[in-house]
Amino acid sequence: MSIGRQLVLDQQTTPAEARQAFRQGVIRPTAGISKGFAQANMIVLPKAYAYDFLLFAQRNPKPCPLLEVLDVGSTAPSIAPGSDIRSDIPKYRIWHDGKLVDEVNDITDVWAEHDDLVTFLIGCSFTFEFPLMEAGIPVHHIEADTNVPMYDTSISCASAGMFTSSMVVSMRGIQPNQVADAVRISGYYPSVHGAPVHIGNPSAIGIKDLTSPQYGDKPILKDGDIPVFWACGVTPQAAVMSSKPSFAITHAPGHMFITDMPDQHYMV
Amino acid sequence: MSIGRQLVLDQQTTPAEARQAFRQGVIRPTAGISKGFAQANMIVLPKAYAYDFLLFAQRNPKPCPLLEVLDVGSTAPSIAPGSDIRSDIPKYRIWHDGKLVDEVNDITDVWAEHDDLVTFLIGCSFTFEFPLMEAGIPVHHIEADTNVPMYDTSISCASAGMFTSSMVVSMRGIQPNQVADAVRISGYYPSVHGAPVHIGNPSAIGIKDLTSPQYGDKPILKDGDIPVFWACGVTPQAAVMSSKPSFAITHAPGHMFITDMPDQHYMV
Repeated sequence: MSIGRQLVLDQQTTPAEARQAFRQGVIRPTAGISKGFAQANMIVLPKAYAYDFLLFAQRNPKPCPLLEVLDVGSTAPSIAPGSDIRSDIPKYRIWHDGKLVDEVNDITDVWAEHDDLVTFLIGCSFTFEFPLMEAGIPVHHIEADTNVPMYDTSISCASAGMFTSSMVVSMRGIQPNQVADAVRISGYYPSVHGAPVHIGNPSAIGIKDLTSPQYGDKPILKDGDIPVFWACGVTPQAAVMSSKPSFAITHAPGHMFITDMPDQHYMV
Repeated sequence: MSIGRQLVLDQQTTPAEARQAFRQGVIRPTAGISKGFAQANMIVLPKAYAYDFLLFAQRNPKPCPLLEVLDVGSTAPSIAPGSDIRSDIPKYRIWHDGKLVDEVNDITDVWAEHDDLVTFLIGCSFTFEFPLMEAGIPVHHIEADTNVPMYDTSISCASAGMFTSSMVVSMRGIQPNQVADAVRISGYYPSVHGAPVHIGNPSAIGIKDLTSPQYGDKPILKDGDIPVFWACGVTPQAAVMSSKPSFAITHAPGHMFITDMPDQHYMV
């Protein structure tokens, strides 16, 4: 793979090519890459926290729809054969006691210091963005090649053991005559957050300033757009911040794990 | 509630009335009771087995779609306010080391001998039977007021920790011109087993004699019926038999926990 090829990661890039580019050091958000293949959020926790987190995900399927949970110590997801969870995500975050301590593009060294890590892969709304676009619904952040805006909210997740959290949401601005189609189409994909959790009134879910997302890039809103909010797989990072496990690794928001699973696999 | 009322548990019985009847000692399968409300399979395990079982369910969402996982020691499911998991199922099974040792209609005494029990409630295909009937698809075992036939199969579940199992399926005989509708309608309910796992050839999934189910009642097949197989929430009982946890409690096949959740809550 040439450097030139790496720099034009796009809809036609295969998941394996994209993962190899990230393994070789390319760092960029993954929105718009590898059309038709599901992307995943990631959180890695020591085994001691795994039951509570698995229960948290079960109780909060909209923000935390699990695509795969690896065996203790495993670094090889079955939904991306040949991949390595330690190197194939463009950017990772390292957390100690709920505090973000580092952002890196490879966690092989960090992983080697532990022998009990459990990896959770969680569905991502990028999966239904191509179906939205194919239905004629513009997805502004993909058109502009930026990261989706994501917000902390006042929506409470169901607690599970040590994990409590508010929900993080992603936002897409959609014209009023297309909101219903966006609901309908994303609703076919419950494993990747499914239908929106809220439509139209940011302040009702505790979002004070729509122009200043807590994660990702500034929103792009066209004249008349309704802000539509989907549950977001960054929620586990909010759970880490509020629940303070001694150690965790996550992907950096918008910098996802690209799987080999066709989007359609997750369509009901 | 009069004895007479108890003996005519039917589509119009409310979930709370049905649970109270079972609490007072009524023992019968729950197919056809409390139209429009979801029923659940149950398995109770000591906490030491809970992570492996939760992971087993995550990896096998068709036979084990989780509706609720209770906190350790809790007997009060949120999907049936006011209920008691120890008394509100018509018949329970007690398992030691993978062997069925008793069938009872109340587990209050057994529960009291443990302080670390975790209850898993799993979706049940009874939930989509009323929508099938409303679409004009006859469900023979409900019309005959018998239990659905269930079979062990050669289909392997994904393993998780100590739990390995083959899949148990339920079977409904459906006319060839209605099979597609049955697939489509049940597919809208992924939380309660969703679309069938197999259609039309029992021997291909290891079912040697369709007339002799391993669980439930003998099948009713009308002329020309195609046997249609759905993943079944009795699968955890097969997992208990093959994986031999020291202790477990389940419902008896067909004798379900009737929740207060409308079927429509689980429709995608």
